[in-house]
Amino acid sequence: MAKRIINFNPGPAALPLPVLEEIREEFLDFKGSGMSVIEISHRSKPFEETLNQAVERTKKLLNLGDEFHVVFIQGGASLQFAMIPMNLALEGKPVDYINTGTWSTKAIKEAKLMGKEVRVIASSEDKNFSYIPKSFQVDEKASYLHFTSNNTIKGTQWAEFPKAGSVPLVCDMSSDILSRPFDAKPFGLIYAGAQKNIGPAGSAMVIIRKDLLDRVPDSMPSMLKYTTFTGQNSLYNTPACFVIYTVSLVLKWLDETIGGLEKMAEINQKKADILYGFMDGSGFYRGTAEKESRSLMNVTFRLPSEELEAKFVAEASKAGLGGLKGHRSVGGCRASMYNAIGLDEIKELVDFMADFQKKEG
Amino acid sequence: MAKRIINFNPGPAALPLPVLEEIREEFLDFKGSGMSVIEISHRSKPFEETLNQAVERTKKLLNLGDEFHVVFIQGGASLQFAMIPMNLALEGKPVDYINTGTWSTKAIKEAKLMGKEVRVIASSEDKNFSYIPKSFQVDEKASYLHFTSNNTIKGTQWAEFPKAGSVPLVCDMSSDILSRPFDAKPFGLIYAGAQKNIGPAGSAMVIIRKDLLDRVPDSMPSMLKYTTFTGQNSLYNTPACFVIYTVSLVLKWLDETIGGLEKMAEINQKKADILYGFMDGSGFYRGTAEKESRSLMNVTFRLPSEELEAKFVAEASKAGLGGLKGHRSVGGCRASMYNAIGLDEIKELVDFMADFQKKEG
Repeated sequence: MAKRIINFNPGPAALPLPVLEEIREEFLDFKGSGMSVIEISHRSKPFEETLNQAVERTKKLLNLGDEFHVVFIQGGASLQFAMIPMNLALEGKPVDYINTGTWSTKAIKEAKLMGKEVRVIASSEDKNFSYIPKSFQVDEKASYLHFTSNNTIKGTQWAEFPKAGSVPLVCDMSSDILSRPFDAKPFGLIYAGAQKNIGPAGSAMVIIRKDLLDRVPDSMPSMLKYTTFTGQNSLYNTPACFVIYTVSLVLKWLDETIGGLEKMAEINQKKADILYGFMDGSGFYRGTAEKESRSLMNVTFRLPSEELEAKFVAEASKAGLGGLKGHRSVGGCRASMYNAIGLDEIKELVDFMADFQKKEG
Repeated sequence: MAKRIINFNPGPAALPLPVLEEIREEFLDFKGSGMSVIEISHRSKPFEETLNQAVERTKKLLNLGDEFHVVFIQGGASLQFAMIPMNLALEGKPVDYINTGTWSTKAIKEAKLMGKEVRVIASSEDKNFSYIPKSFQVDEKASYLHFTSNNTIKGTQWAEFPKAGSVPLVCDMSSDILSRPFDAKPFGLIYAGAQKNIGPAGSAMVIIRKDLLDRVPDSMPSMLKYTTFTGQNSLYNTPACFVIYTVSLVLKWLDETIGGLEKMAEINQKKADILYGFMDGSGFYRGTAEKESRSLMNVTFRLPSEELEAKFVAEASKAGLGGLKGHRSVGGCRASMYNAIGLDEIKELVDFMADFQKKEG
């Protein structure tokens, strides 16, 4: 038996144990092919089925209409920061961004590098990104409006998405994709690095509305054009097969074992209620995000001193609770609890936190 | 016990069985971390060690001096086709290419898309790319000279690399990297999609000489600049962790079990001698590449008719010999025999080919 910890890492992150066990079980012989999934051709029937299942399951879970493509593109969300303005900026129309932290800031930086007219129409930088901006003016002349749905480092999340009228929303959902249902209609493009809620590192999932493909300029490298991926079902060149395979299994687990996104969202809400509820009542653990902007995925908090924080992280680790250190840019503590973290694991965390407070508080 | 076939696929391709078994063995608990290798942080000590081992082992096996960086970049060789001219073309200096088939042609296409002055200084297109060009003039004014060391589809390979004086060689070694030793000094950049000789699909290995980094323009997307990867040991963003991990295990196997590149090259030469030797004496199987240009990695051949070829591929598959169909663009048959294919497996293939000829010839 493998010794396993409870993994609160922000990404790469915990994946459902039954998925890991299934991968291990068939690792030398993928679907009776006599080859490992990492040895089989990406153009073979068993692999194409897997890819198609990942696409279809995504469409089903997110209730996406036929107006959307789902593709897999290597390079993570970071490459998308550049591909989005390269592909979707319209001549003479600025690209608009809302800045809610580190990842939004990076997306803005890359758009500027591409020489686009970038407008930051809202930002929460004035309070160290501890909240989600509420008031902003959307300009119908924008090519798109970009925002980050969940901010792993600052621990904030959009509870309701911004409204932008006819301007297509473009959203980095790396850290909360498939954690809750939402209406995809206002979105032109949704992207997510796989390594938080849906699989291993090594690919972004990109959901793109078909009419936006008309914007893709001809004179770009093939591997940077969305049409290269949508036109060939992510198989223009060899994709990140193992990532796609694992994603397909995670989505199957989400659909069949959990029971879909409504159920997943309920569980995620309960997890957050338990952990934030405990913290708020503790007088010892202090959440860093404003209450109405709190993330259900990444709970950022402080203890009364940095010494106590270091001790907390170290003792938690000894007790089998890993990954509780805050991001190196902000310090403090953070519990990331993506889909694969269950209610029981949050209860164990809260028990540990209560014990720690009793000893040290 | 998993039922395994002998896997002659051109890529993704066979990997060493001991490596697959090791992955399976520790899949739920990577190096005693209590997490799977696909759940652990890319900035954790166990993963960074793995990454560093992959880099150091590559340097050792290829005898690379300190003037080289080894990095991992997602997007496969196809993204490199664009990144190379974007990063390495010098103002006013053309980029030179030798065209030996499908992959060279794609590399040339992407360089042209980038608006560079592209010169094709040699090509074997006149004879359907069945040979490696021998005579060509290298111009000292070129930014670099690009060539493809092994051509998977046409079954040809450079036995000796072109000489280009002070012009840095840039080489796509996707299908024969680490299959034989060579002198890296004349190379400015070597790249290889991992999914043939060294691991799963989902990352390219890029070896770049440090002085060429001075050429990288500032005003490019971060994820397309080589300096982003060399400056942060491939950890600017989350890399393809599982691919890098598997590569590190394959390189360990190559170094410790096989005994290094000289040994690997001897085995690969023997495999080729056996298979080509049998074919040449058969009067039935006909190699498609000119003899002195034959690939040791991908053996392309024809049977007397397309009907016999289809039957050959189907019966081989039934007998547990998979992946022998030629590329869809050229037809015929192909046996890809990268490092993970052993001598015994080539003998089994030859036995099958002899039996088939007896029945059908």
